[in-house]
Amino acid sequence: MKKIEEMKAYLKEQQMDAAFITTPDNVFYLSGFRSNPHERLLGVMVFPDDEPFLIAPKMEVPDVTASGWQYETVGHADTDNAWDLVKEAVLNKGISLSKMGIEKMHITVDRLEAIQSIFPEAGIVGIDDKLNSMRVIKDEEELEQMRKAAELADYAIEVGCREIAEGKTELEVLMAIEFEMKRKGVYMSFDTMVLSGPKTASPHGTPGERKIQKGDFVLFDLGVVYNGYCSDITRTVSFGEPNEEQRIIYETVRKAEQAAVDAVKPGILAKELDGIARGIITEAGYGEYFTHRLGHGLGISVHEFPSVTATNAMALEEGMVFTIEPGIYKTGVAGVRIEDDVVVTKDGVEVLTKFPKELQIIQ
Amino acid sequence: MKKIEEMKAYLKEQQMDAAFITTPDNVFYLSGFRSNPHERLLGVMVFPDDEPFLIAPKMEVPDVTASGWQYETVGHADTDNAWDLVKEAVLNKGISLSKMGIEKMHITVDRLEAIQSIFPEAGIVGIDDKLNSMRVIKDEEELEQMRKAAELADYAIEVGCREIAEGKTELEVLMAIEFEMKRKGVYMSFDTMVLSGPKTASPHGTPGERKIQKGDFVLFDLGVVYNGYCSDITRTVSFGEPNEEQRIIYETVRKAEQAAVDAVKPGILAKELDGIARGIITEAGYGEYFTHRLGHGLGISVHEFPSVTATNAMALEEGMVFTIEPGIYKTGVAGVRIEDDVVVTKDGVEVLTKFPKELQIIQ
Repeated sequence: MKKIEEMKAYLKEQQMDAAFITTPDNVFYLSGFRSNPHERLLGVMVFPDDEPFLIAPKMEVPDVTASGWQYETVGHADTDNAWDLVKEAVLNKGISLSKMGIEKMHITVDRLEAIQSIFPEAGIVGIDDKLNSMRVIKDEEELEQMRKAAELADYAIEVGCREIAEGKTELEVLMAIEFEMKRKGVYMSFDTMVLSGPKTASPHGTPGERKIQKGDFVLFDLGVVYNGYCSDITRTVSFGEPNEEQRIIYETVRKAEQAAVDAVKPGILAKELDGIARGIITEAGYGEYFTHRLGHGLGISVHEFPSVTATNAMALEEGMVFTIEPGIYKTGVAGVRIEDDVVVTKDGVEVLTKFPKELQIIQ
Repeated sequence: MKKIEEMKAYLKEQQMDAAFITTPDNVFYLSGFRSNPHERLLGVMVFPDDEPFLIAPKMEVPDVTASGWQYETVGHADTDNAWDLVKEAVLNKGISLSKMGIEKMHITVDRLEAIQSIFPEAGIVGIDDKLNSMRVIKDEEELEQMRKAAELADYAIEVGCREIAEGKTELEVLMAIEFEMKRKGVYMSFDTMVLSGPKTASPHGTPGERKIQKGDFVLFDLGVVYNGYCSDITRTVSFGEPNEEQRIIYETVRKAEQAAVDAVKPGILAKELDGIARGIITEAGYGEYFTHRLGHGLGISVHEFPSVTATNAMALEEGMVFTIEPGIYKTGVAGVRIEDDVVVTKDGVEVLTKFPKELQIIQ
């Protein structure tokens, strides 16, 4: 419960009387309890000088206990007014709230109004930045989960490559990957992408019944969740020999990706990384076909801070984890994206995803 | 664009100058364009007397056009300030906003603050109730999609039953179902559940490597998304002959479920339906093992209005679609849940899910 302690210290320092954290990812981060309660209320209330409590749907209370949460848990049935129970739990501690933190970037306006109605005296402030700045730096324990998540993603690409064969559909390859991952006991961190041939040129295409054929590029974009932490990898491979322009596009993306990876170290700005990759792609004449940011942070969420864009002037710090994933999408020719998950280390970079990046030609 | 017209008429009647709708489900409902933009801005701005516009990530603009959206689309790159583009698009129409609708139940506090900063003169009101009351009544076109989604869910259960065999794992059965659904071109509406034996007694269990064996109940809970509309079905079947208490529990749930289904008609209250099913289960001595509400609304979301709980006094109306899904979860004995998707018709009920409810004994 190291993270609860850090949050308590922060509340004390900021002279806040409480923070109510309600996004499933942040609840998991602070408490170790992961759940998607849909429209039901799930939250952790943290106080500077008292023990926190967790409120969760009644039927999940046994799971809260099993997850290792060692403080109070308030269960609410569908027929309860969960907000009244929150109010009661705070009153029971004899705490009055005059300044309270919430996640402004996540909490909805109606929930804000509910909080204001049960704690009318409380001034509301955002604690998103604090939570983000905690979450953006991964500790060794978190990195351990992410290494394992990346290792499983590498293996998933290996499974995908092994499955490619003349006439097999994108979906058949995709399901073989997902089946193997479920056997390993992990969920995918987002909808797996297996695109082939002309479909690789769409950065957000949908896998379907298209049959893979010789001369196709096959693009895999996938990841898994391991102990609550995500991986996210993209590899593009060639089924049979690629033509000249396919090869040029591939090598351009590879060079851009590797250059950005190699540049990662504490102090470099996110936008500098984007610029390095974008510069190489633009120089090769493909700038207009690289239509998205270089990468995004990764952790409990598959998209979190830092965002690696052409404009983000954030200096990278040791312990940050993000993707580097340049792409070129030229309709009618080919689409290629290569994506790694990287950690900023004390003096450089650790690349979590290790599947080879030399163009794999599958015969 | 019938729904846009209805929203325009509502804004006129309420003397609102605009409504900005940003949840992916409601954007789809109004515009026909479905996307999950993660943290990027996606929204439809509707005006009482002008044409609406849609703002979307730049790379999705071609998909917006392909979806049939016939009005203006504003694309924003990752490097743009999307809110400035929203402001500009409104100013370009020469409209000034003094009263503006948003989805208070969905929009986050920071987005509210962004709206307030670009439109400081605008009074903000919630339009959730209007959107919910539009969405809660399905028109014939929507029901057509839901019938098809339910038909596919029935078929998925059939596939699951066919796959059950001595020693097969829950995951193997699950993947066979999902593969067949992907082949049909549809996504699952939520993580498919296949639980066997003692695991059926957990209403939120996770499918795993447990091998199915004779004497097990096998519980399937699954659904698909067809043209943007969800189905959600649960069936519990027996692998081999059930014992006496398994049979009693099954027949109790079946009787409760059928009684609630049969009671559906315009004017009955949601809580009355819950009470009918709960009454039968309680009378049979299993009340404490029915630990959740009777059902939930279904449509573009897999959980929407109306919520069918012991306390919801909402009178049901023609065109509402929801699940009826009582269950009994008795640890060490068995868990049974039976779930149908039903529509309130002019004088009764249409049951969308049609897989048989007589206890299926698989040899």
